[in-house]
Amino acid sequence: MTINNQTVFDADRAHVFHSWSIQSALKPLIIKSGLGSYLWDYEGKRYLDFSSQLINTNVGHQHPKVIAGIKTQLDTLTTIAPATANHARNEAAERLLAIAGDDFAKVFFTNAGADANENAIRMARLYTGRDKVLSSYRSYHGNTGAAIAATGDTRRVPNEYSRGHVHFFSPYLYRSDFWATDEAQECERGLQHLRRVIEAEGASSIAAILLEALPGTAGVLVPPSGYMQGVRQLCDEFGIVLIMDEVMAGFGRTGKWFAHQHYNITPDLITFAKGVNSGYVPAGGVIIHQKINAYFDDKSFPGGLTYSGHPLAMASIVATLDVMAQEHMIENADTIGNGVLAQGLKALADKHTIIGEVRGMGVFWALELVKNRHSKQKLSADEMNTIKAALIERGLLPFIAENRIHVAPPCNVSTDEVAQALAIVDEVLGMACTQFINE
Amino acid sequence: MTINNQTVFDADRAHVFHSWSIQSALKPLIIKSGLGSYLWDYEGKRYLDFSSQLINTNVGHQHPKVIAGIKTQLDTLTTIAPATANHARNEAAERLLAIAGDDFAKVFFTNAGADANENAIRMARLYTGRDKVLSSYRSYHGNTGAAIAATGDTRRVPNEYSRGHVHFFSPYLYRSDFWATDEAQECERGLQHLRRVIEAEGASSIAAILLEALPGTAGVLVPPSGYMQGVRQLCDEFGIVLIMDEVMAGFGRTGKWFAHQHYNITPDLITFAKGVNSGYVPAGGVIIHQKINAYFDDKSFPGGLTYSGHPLAMASIVATLDVMAQEHMIENADTIGNGVLAQGLKALADKHTIIGEVRGMGVFWALELVKNRHSKQKLSADEMNTIKAALIERGLLPFIAENRIHVAPPCNVSTDEVAQALAIVDEVLGMACTQFINE
Repeated sequence: MTINNQTVFDADRAHVFHSWSIQSALKPLIIKSGLGSYLWDYEGKRYLDFSSQLINTNVGHQHPKVIAGIKTQLDTLTTIAPATANHARNEAAERLLAIAGDDFAKVFFTNAGADANENAIRMARLYTGRDKVLSSYRSYHGNTGAAIAATGDTRRVPNEYSRGHVHFFSPYLYRSDFWATDEAQECERGLQHLRRVIEAEGASSIAAILLEALPGTAGVLVPPSGYMQGVRQLCDEFGIVLIMDEVMAGFGRTGKWFAHQHYNITPDLITFAKGVNSGYVPAGGVIIHQKINAYFDDKSFPGGLTYSGHPLAMASIVATLDVMAQEHMIENADTIGNGVLAQGLKALADKHTIIGEVRGMGVFWALELVKNRHSKQKLSADEMNTIKAALIERGLLPFIAENRIHVAPPCNVSTDEVAQALAIVDEVLGMACTQFINE
Repeated sequence: MTINNQTVFDADRAHVFHSWSIQSALKPLIIKSGLGSYLWDYEGKRYLDFSSQLINTNVGHQHPKVIAGIKTQLDTLTTIAPATANHARNEAAERLLAIAGDDFAKVFFTNAGADANENAIRMARLYTGRDKVLSSYRSYHGNTGAAIAATGDTRRVPNEYSRGHVHFFSPYLYRSDFWATDEAQECERGLQHLRRVIEAEGASSIAAILLEALPGTAGVLVPPSGYMQGVRQLCDEFGIVLIMDEVMAGFGRTGKWFAHQHYNITPDLITFAKGVNSGYVPAGGVIIHQKINAYFDDKSFPGGLTYSGHPLAMASIVATLDVMAQEHMIENADTIGNGVLAQGLKALADKHTIIGEVRGMGVFWALELVKNRHSKQKLSADEMNTIKAALIERGLLPFIAENRIHVAPPCNVSTDEVAQALAIVDEVLGMACTQFINE
């Protein structure tokens, strides 16, 4: 059987149903193989992956030590039911708890981020005896019943079949929902708004506030200084569980193991997936604070799943976290991300007026593209598609969301790869300025 | 570092949060490795696995060809975003469609059975423009928001946070909810009851009927002849989507590829996980009928997940389905399951009055244990725990649910292994008759 770009494309369009899409309009990119920051198709065309796929391949593609770790587990025990005790699972839990710190007691493993949030919500509801979950309109928390209802972006709307979810506005100074003009005001007003929502919904009905540690798909929205600490204080004041979603922001993405560690706060539950094992095997979970863990010591937890603590997934977590530490990837994400990458992106913004704002940290950035810096009018979907196609044509794989280019290379990206990517973005935005600016 | 039964047990109890449990009461079995129908702990104690874990290791443990298939994919491309086209994903979709038949057009891949059902429900709601989902009280469909609300067993109750789910009674002649005295009556009354629920809820509000093709955890409840055809007719009459959950019953478990193929009906959506790849990598999905696929040709599908169509999962599906065909495992599940296993279980029922009913097909059976055949009084949880411990002590790993032993070896189980298992069950039930019978 011949396998080439055309046969793979044709078979995909014949048999595979895709996420979040109009099926007849799809033109999926064909990928054969990968290594490090690169991917290749069947014709040998190479792509520099500055998307980390869906912001998950934090150690890059095909890291040999992670693959070796999975193979060793494959030779021992590939799968086992969650009710058993298993060495790989213990090792994964111990490593995650070491990263999270002494306030945390246990880890509950799931298949991905959505069911991590499902189970964190479940724990918070049982622990508090309350029902409602507050989350931001500018958020994405997964696609299952409770997770998609907790999600704030518009993908929620056709899926609103879980009760007790309330959404609030979270900080985004560039397009402030609070008529704020500086970061301190955005923070103060954001917290005042959240307090008003809590009061108006009734604090005694609110189980949890679920927040991305650094809202990702919504636009890499770095919270203003003091905001997350303020949310933590509101949770303490009203007896609300703080669930920190580290699915996208965790595991080096921001230059620390967890993004919430930038804020010096302790969440009550931490949900994870993606970067925990670079997505090499589907895996996610919840890291549980001592006080919530203690609650379930003598009460049954009504949740579970067949692949909870799956040995292959666990081995891939262990190998990933070990290799990230051994190869100093967190430090690299910090050094390169907040160094040449940050400087390069800011230089692009100085040059190209199509960039309305650059924001981010570590290897997690967004370029917000506007037709006009004063009106902040967003580029259209068609215009963004033109930009996306031009980047891909030049061998750069971007993560495009609405009017933004999210710049998210692996944590072990090199200075040279950053330079390559910046040169391509520079060229394409130069072209885009000519075509799309409206000033 | 020394790794032995005690260290693994201790680390588990220190760091791992378990499903469906009171955490302080847990005594998880320690498993080091597996091969075929057997598992071993660190002291070399061997267990004959007649649970297939959670009814998923249909090709047994550590099948070398499936492991080889996963390793080959590991060497090529371990992970990739769902928006791309990928050869392994295409191959997995093609094989599933070949099994499902010409009425089906595409496959949407998920991480497991819960999110398979979530997405099938999502498709049915959008396709019909209706909201409600009908499912049986005697069912289990997963643990995420919509899936757990669709689930009928009592694990639903602390998790009811998704709207629009209505439950009905499905056939179970041994404990009839319809005062029926024979199979034909159970079938007729079951269908009449379902029709009344549809009428009373309002057919125009009902998107889907979600049914396990052979209800598993609820008790291996083989539907009476004609029931599933009757459900199909009701769905046709009222324009309701029929979602057939083949997560536990599919992939040889009943002696056919899909359990619904026993009934000569065509569902509108088929959900799968577990046996599709023996759980070697977390995977699930939805097989989509042409008519529902056509609906989404020009409408966006508002669902998705990072690991949809994950290459490792796809390679494990391809290898599993190929090896099941090459090694005639479906035929083996039929021949041995409906031969020596069925005969052996029925002989046990003739001998031990503690067995109230034997039911099942293929390698999917339940022994319902009762204190008294006339009153059908169930054994208590403590009594079942005693039986479970006695089976495990003798090296047989059972699947225990409520007052039942579910007998579910892999599809490639041998005659000799069946004989070993039957001898252990015989010995333990002999003991249990003496201790627990109350006649």
